Amino acid sequence: MARQPRAIRTRNAVLTAAAEVFARRGYEAANIAEILTQAQVTKGALYFHFASKEELARGVLEHAVTGTVDHPVKVQALVDTGLLLSRRLPNEPILRGAARLAADQGAGAFFGGPWPMWTDLTARQLAEAKEAGEIYESVDPMGTAEVLVGAFTGMQLMALASGTEQELVRLTSKLYELILPGITMPAVLQRVDTSPARSDALLEQARAQNAAEPAPEEAAESA
Amino acid sequence: MARQPRAIRTRNAVLTAAAEVFARRGYEAANIAEILTQAQVTKGALYFHFASKEELARGVLEHAVTGTVDHPVKVQALVDTGLLLSRRLPNEPILRGAARLAADQGAGAFFGGPWPMWTDLTARQLAEAKEAGEIYESVDPMGTAEVLVGAFTGMQLMALASGTEQELVRLTSKLYELILPGITMPAVLQRVDTSPARSDALLEQARAQNAAEPAPEEAAESA
Repeated sequence: MARQPRAIRTRNAVLTAAAEVFARRGYEAANIAEILTQAQVTKGALYFHFASKEELARGVLEHAVTGTVDHPVKVQALVDTGLLLSRRLPNEPILRGAARLAADQGAGAFFGGPWPMWTDLTARQLAEAKEAGEIYESVDPMGTAEVLVGAFTGMQLMALASGTEQELVRLTSKLYELILPGITMPAVLQRVDTSPARSDALLEQARAQNAAEPAPEEAAESA
Repeated sequence: MARQPRAIRTRNAVLTAAAEVFARRGYEAANIAEILTQAQVTKGALYFHFASKEELARGVLEHAVTGTVDHPVKVQALVDTGLLLSRRLPNEPILRGAARLAADQGAGAFFGGPWPMWTDLTARQLAEAKEAGEIYESVDPMGTAEVLVGAFTGMQLMALASGTEQELVRLTSKLYELILPGITMPAVLQRVDTSPARSDALLEQARAQNAAEPAPEEAAESA
């Protein structure tokens, strides 16, 4: 059953507001009243979509798994996915809210949340790179994905503390620069670009794609 | 001026209690009343040593920089320092409290805290390894140290969420296994042991050392 356009707009407004409040306060200190003020919706409208703070947090975490960037070189696709996420995170409420929930020790119930989703996605990308013969047979996709996602979570905190928007892209680029030589075939490695500057083009490309293909929710809205 | 034994015992009890409360509640939600109950000291005794919650947090963070493990192979010294810290962290209140403060976005004022100290220490170890010709000339000790410390911070959150005490040692070992091949001279790399099992011997060694040389505070106490 298709949802109504207005309901979808309300749901998105509530999710974005919740993400902003989670990013600012953390899970435990966040409260529904502040989310209502931020979203400018009624209590009834919010509870129609989300029964509790826990459901709001789950909604934010699910919304924040953005998918991967495609590239014929699988290792480059892995790098591009991380660089684009690093570039988008400081400016997108849903991503910032999810990152804080992921690192929030008060949000015990959600610890299982974004990490398994991002870790699975990263492990899949590594498995594809292995199948394509781009990384060594000895590489364990899941173990490597855990380190990459764990490292990203910590570097995101570090970048936030630095107060510099470009810091996360710089650290993510450095992480790939350090890790790839140990897992990637030399012939592939020399073709892979891990530079922070690459994130400019990736961001533009993602924006152009978003403009060309309306998201399913927007499509439903104009239907 | 040497401090009195009883004062030192009180100070240590307060620091340990504060660390436990920070680890449990995070910086913002932690309160002095709970720290007093946990430490079983009077309000006056606590305030004699620490004027505020902020000072308590600083005390915990400073106490948690444990120093490095020595080894003739400098890259091994780097690995050993990380493996020992990973092994000790789940069982030592001061380390757990400091780790939570480091990752706590509510503790904005302390974000500068443990990271610069640990990052400097790690960068120094990398610089020594470079001087000894163990890692490539192209390695940037500070940039590499930032990635290692950022990664550790995130992996520590991931390990905590797993609920398994050995998880942090496993992830730290994996991080070194992934990063070292890209920075270490092959002849050195084949002599370096990054296995989680190594942390058993390191822990025993650290305990034996502690038993043999009383800490300066304990020495003062028995003087």
